[in-house]
Formats: sequence, C-alpha cells, structure tokens
Amino acid sequence: MEYTKYLAGRANWIKGSALAEVMKKAAELQKKGTKLISLAAGDPDPDLIPRKVLGEIAKEILEKEAKSVMYTPANGIPELREEIASFLKKHDQLEVSPENIVITIGGTGALDLLGRILIDPGDVILTENPSYINTLLAFEQLGAKIEGVSVDNDGMRVDLLEEKIKELKTKGQKIKFIYTIPTGQNPMGITMSMERRKALLEIASEYDLLIIEDTAYNFMRYEGENILPLKALDKDGRVIVAGTLSKVLGTGFRIGWVIAEGEILKKVLMQKQPIDFCAPAISQYIALEYLRRGYFEKYHLKGALLGYKEKRDIMLTALEEHLPNAEFTRPIAGMFVMLFLPEEANGIAFASELMGKEGVVVVPGEPFYTDDTGKNAIRLNFSRPSKEDISIGIERIAKLYREKF
Amino acid sequence: MEYTKYLAGRANWIKGSALAEVMKKAAELQKKGTKLISLAAGDPDPDLIPRKVLGEIAKEILEKEAKSVMYTPANGIPELREEIASFLKKHDQLEVSPENIVITIGGTGALDLLGRILIDPGDVILTENPSYINTLLAFEQLGAKIEGVSVDNDGMRVDLLEEKIKELKTKGQKIKFIYTIPTGQNPMGITMSMERRKALLEIASEYDLLIIEDTAYNFMRYEGENILPLKALDKDGRVIVAGTLSKVLGTGFRIGWVIAEGEILKKVLMQKQPIDFCAPAISQYIALEYLRRGYFEKYHLKGALLGYKEKRDIMLTALEEHLPNAEFTRPIAGMFVMLFLPEEANGIAFASELMGKEGVVVVPGEPFYTDDTGKNAIRLNFSRPSKEDISIGIERIAKLYREKF
Repeated sequence: MEYTKYLAGRANWIKGSALAEVMKKAAELQKKGTKLISLAAGDPDPDLIPRKVLGEIAKEILEKEAKSVMYTPANGIPELREEIASFLKKHDQLEVSPENIVITIGGTGALDLLGRILIDPGDVILTENPSYINTLLAFEQLGAKIEGVSVDNDGMRVDLLEEKIKELKTKGQKIKFIYTIPTGQNPMGITMSMERRKALLEIASEYDLLIIEDTAYNFMRYEGENILPLKALDKDGRVIVAGTLSKVLGTGFRIGWVIAEGEILKKVLMQKQPIDFCAPAISQYIALEYLRRGYFEKYHLKGALLGYKEKRDIMLTALEEHLPNAEFTRPIAGMFVMLFLPEEANGIAFASELMGKEGVVVVPGEPFYTDDTGKNAIRLNFSRPSKEDISIGIERIAKLYREKF
Repeated sequence: MEYTKYLAGRANWIKGSALAEVMKKAAELQKKGTKLISLAAGDPDPDLIPRKVLGEIAKEILEKEAKSVMYTPANGIPELREEIASFLKKHDQLEVSPENIVITIGGTGALDLLGRILIDPGDVILTENPSYINTLLAFEQLGAKIEGVSVDNDGMRVDLLEEKIKELKTKGQKIKFIYTIPTGQNPMGITMSMERRKALLEIASEYDLLIIEDTAYNFMRYEGENILPLKALDKDGRVIVAGTLSKVLGTGFRIGWVIAEGEILKKVLMQKQPIDFCAPAISQYIALEYLRRGYFEKYHLKGALLGYKEKRDIMLTALEEHLPNAEFTRPIAGMFVMLFLPEEANGIAFASELMGKEGVVVVPGEPFYTDDTGKNAIRLNFSRPSKEDISIGIERIAKLYREKF
C-alpha cells in the first residue's frame, strides 16, 4: 500500500537525525562482535547512579503504594511537584511554586509541549550555534525556522544576537523565542557567564521575546558555584524553564518539568493529558523518594558528581597531552567537550574513519550547527565511558589526528 | 506579563476536558474528608495487579541491568518489541514483525504520534459516537474535525458510516481516517461483532480510508473468544494499531505501541525521538520480564481478568435489580457500562447531585459524544472500585434515580 498520500503536510517537516547513521553503523559493528570504545553517549554513568538504592525504592513503592501503577494527575503527583520546588530552591537558587511546575516526559517532553503551544509554522527560534540537535529537530517538526547565534567561552554572543534580531525584524520575520542551554551546553560544554546572562535578559526584554531555558545540566556543575539560572534573574516572567532529573537519576526514567505561568501554563496543562496522559508513575515515585530521602546530596553531590569531574579532568588532560595544538572546549559543567579538527577537516569523515580503524565512536558536530560552520567539530562525551576508555579513546583519536593532519 | 500574544494559532484548538470539573469537585470533597465511592476511574484495579511481583522485577532489573536507567532506542528495546510480537501472536491472533512495532508512552502517546503525522488542520476523523474523550481532544488539538457515527450493540453502525462518508464527500470534505475501539469500547463497553468488523474493513477499502484501531481493551475480554482484531483481518495494510499494556500492568507504566508499515512507520520513527526520546526504560524492562516470565497468563488471564469479570457481573446484577427499567450496556470486554437516564434527564446535573447527596462519583457521558445526543448518559467503571463499592454505588444511583424520575 502507498501511504504517502495520507501523510499530513507537517510530516514534511520531520527530518531524520544525521546522528542516526553513525549510531546505526556502530550498532552493526558491535553486533559483529567488534569491541568499540564509545565517547558518543548523551547519558550519565549507570555505575555512578545508585541503581541498587533506586531498585529498593521501586520495590518498596510498588508493593505499598497502589497509586504507583495508576495514572497520575496530568501535571504530576502533587508531592513530587512540592519536592521539586524545594529542590530547585535549595540547589538551583530558584523560587517557584509547585503550581507552576508541570511534570513531563523528560526535558524532551517539556520542550515539545512548549513548542506545540508556541510555534506557528514559519516562526523563527533563536538559539546558540551549535545547539542540541534533538530540540532543533523537535521545533523544526512544528514548522520553526532555526537561526543560530555564535558562541564563545562565555556562551551565546549577545552582541551578535541583537544584530540577528534587528536583521530578522528588517526582513519582517517573526521571532517566537530564544532557546538556550546556559549551563554545560550541549554540544559545546560551555557555560554562559553571569554578565552574559544579564545581557541576554536585557535583550529579551528590549525586544519583548520569551526565553526557553533548558536547564538539563544545571546539576552537573563542577566549578563556578555562583552561576544563577536565567529564571532566577527573570523579573518579567519572560523565562520558561525546561528542566529534568535525567542527568541525576538517569535518562531512562523520563522525568522532566516545565516551569511556566499564566496562559502558557494553562495551555500546557490543558494540552498535556491528551498527548501522553502523564509521566510514568513509577518514575515519579522514585524521583520523589530520591529527593525526599536526601539522596541527591548523598549519592549525587557527594558521589556521582565527583566521578564526572574526575572523568572530565582525565579527558582534558589527555587532550592537552596528546593534542597540544588542537582547539577544544573546557567545560565547567555538563558532559561534553567539543574538539575542533583543523579547519579544512571533515568531522563526519573523521568519525567514520575513527570507528573503522580505531574502534572509537564519537559524534560529529556538524548536525548540531544551524549553518555550515562546524564541519570540523566532533563532540566527545566524558560522563558515560570508563576512565580507562576515556584515556584510550583520546589516545586513538590523537593517533588518527596526527596521521591525517 | 501578558502571554496570549505569544501563543501559536494551534493553541486555539486546545480544549479543556469537560471531565476535569467533575474530578476537581470530587478532589475538593475528598480533601474536606468526605468519603466518596468512585465509579469514575479509567484504571484497572491496583490490587488485582501483582504489584509485589512487579516490585521484585524492578529491584532486580535496576540492580543488574545498567541499561534500565539509560535512554533506550527511540522505538523501544529490541527484546521488548520481540516479546510483544510473540505476545500479540499468542493472545491477539496477530502476526506482526518486531520491526513494525514502536514502543510509545502508553496508548495515548501512540495515538498522538499517529495524529501528528496524519492530520492536517480541517481533516475529518470518523469515529464511534460516543468515543474516548482523550483521543478526541488529542486529534482536535491537531486541527481535526470529529464526525461521530452512532453505535448499537454490535459496534459502529457501518450503514450509517457509509452514509456519512458519502455526505462528507459531497460536501468536499477530506476524511483522513476512521478511529475505532472495536473491543470493550470506551465509554460504551460495546464490542464490535465479527460481521461488523468485516463490513468496516470493506467500507474502508471501498473509500480508500485508513483505520486506526485502538486495542486498549483487547486483553480485558470476558466472553466472545473468537473475535479477531481488525488488524488480523486487514489484507491491505489499511489498519494501524495503537496498543497498550496499561490495562494489564497498570496505566502508570506508560507502555504502549504503534503497529505501522511503510512511510507511516518511517515518519513515526523519525518523529518520535525529538518528541519524547523514548518510553521509560524501567517500564520497558518491567513489561519485558512480565511477558517473558509468563506472568500474563499467571497473573492476568488466570487472576485479574477473573476479578474484573466478577465485578462486571456484580454491577450488571445490581443494575438489573435496582433499575429494572433503565437502559444500560452489557459489556463482554473492557471496564465500562454506559447507563442511560430517562431521555429528558441531564447526566451532568445528575452526576453533580449524586456526588453531593450520595457521595458517589460517576462520569457524565455527554463529553464523549460528538453531537448533542447522550446528554442523559453516565459512564460507570467496574474495574477499579471494590465489589462492595460497586454494590453500594449502584444502590445509591438507583435511589437518586427513583427520587428524580
């Protein structure tokens, strides 16, 4: 049967992820028994997550709490929304009422929900260039046009942002919002400076734009204690937050949130139940007990986070040692380092050769870019691989790098 | 801040659920300490679900399987897709390849995914009148116009369906697909006869329409063993399935699936990751082990299902005893009975009075109807309440019924 004629017009906006090919090839090699070292993940380390403890919570909750197998309210169980409000106050310097928190299917679900109520086809979304490919694809599926703004070590170049806004306005284009990952940005690993954060809010205010702040890596900070989320600096109610516990509990639980107000909150709430009914109850209860019992401090702040910091240091030290002349980012938060090959190099070809010859999987940076810069970038993950694999991986990358350039 | 100006045009299609008011009022009464009997649920019974066993699986899996806290592939873990294929073959007489199964955020997520790639604003969706309100709202959020077709005890009136198709075609309207819940329909509790199923497929073939078959209640069948799903009768590849384990494992796990082919499958796969990344890993692993260990037979077929059948019988017997002259449906599958008050009665007013005076919560049928019929209907759930509450609930409904009519 020929199905194309039944597809909606908006199905034309659905694009495949360029990363899928890399991952498919890696999976095929692994099926053949090839042992690969992967620096390609977007996950925390399953061995730094207290899985045994989470398993005990799950057992306890499923046995005693009938609600743990039932639908929850569409916006999440009230106790979890309260617990997240306290958590954000304590650990993200954010004052927010539980009424303004909507529990979502991870940060991904939060961003899609917001996109659906905000984006008209043809609307422009401004974001860092490069930015998180999955969000760019989600917004593009809704008909958005993505315009990227270059970054430096302090985050989005707010001077260039303003130029871009003026240029788009001159062209008569409608800018819907600014999407930013200020802390531990994916894929760059960069954290926006406080000065830049304030400047960004001023620009948003001047041009009356909303900001969607993706706080995915806010609890993976290794340095720079005094960095406030944009939302904590937001006097107008201009910042909408897409948050998640994925980098703390694990990406598989699918627990995220939207923080919003007024008509936007109202529409998110009305829209949500018909889309996914609710976030998984068992995950919500695990998150609730994890926070309530103080496990965030015990297992994350005093445990996993130190492990990620150590792995970051191993990766940066190895890069400095083996590729002293290469350019790469030095993250103070998040899970990624962006490595730049020489300007004329092609990251996709390099990643492919690296996998075939050296058995190391990395993610080419190009698909994260909103223009044709970044062809020489490759994204390296340090949170998921073992310390040993990080060292070997970087050595092998350096070996191929030296052979080619 | 005034947010309305930022909303997308499509946000106008988001409607609140008329059921929310009933539920809000019930929650308020309960907060005040009023003991309510609820026949309003859309859940199986948490005490007929082997929660202790599920808890033990969760503990075991979280401890030993690192992948249980990580992202899964967007279409679900391969082992679960294989297990569901075997399960559907054995228990739903359906031959399907694991490659054609996409694991979703419950049946709700499956229906939304399909709506997003199929529905253009203004498209007409044909469905039973009444039908499941949450799906109608999901399709309406995407700009669909819902047209209902009356039902009788054998399901959708296929003769009226054909009339409706002709009428819509004459008006130049575009029909996108037929949405149906052939087995244990929500809210009617009706199961479509085999003859009617075949006739429906013929009509779909004649007018070249897709069918979305919602199989939510296929594993809650109490009688009528020889009823095949539409998909098992589908020679053209015209039927797309939205399935779920919610009525088996519990609605809170959020495990459902799409079964599709060709371009539709391809678009579902490409679209899914940016929307929700994947279904919850822990739920996927619990579902996998539940099926793999034969617990569906042990705990559902030989356990829970008998309990639901008993509760159904208690409800029907009580209705026959206390309301011998009233009209109500007699389900052979699913979890609902639709009770009709006298023709001039208003179900919303009755439900409100019933809650206030008798402390019994029911769901008015009106919001499930696609036209202004059904004002006198109320939906009764028998799967979730205790046997005692069913008896008392029906007695109290009958008391108010006799007082008023």
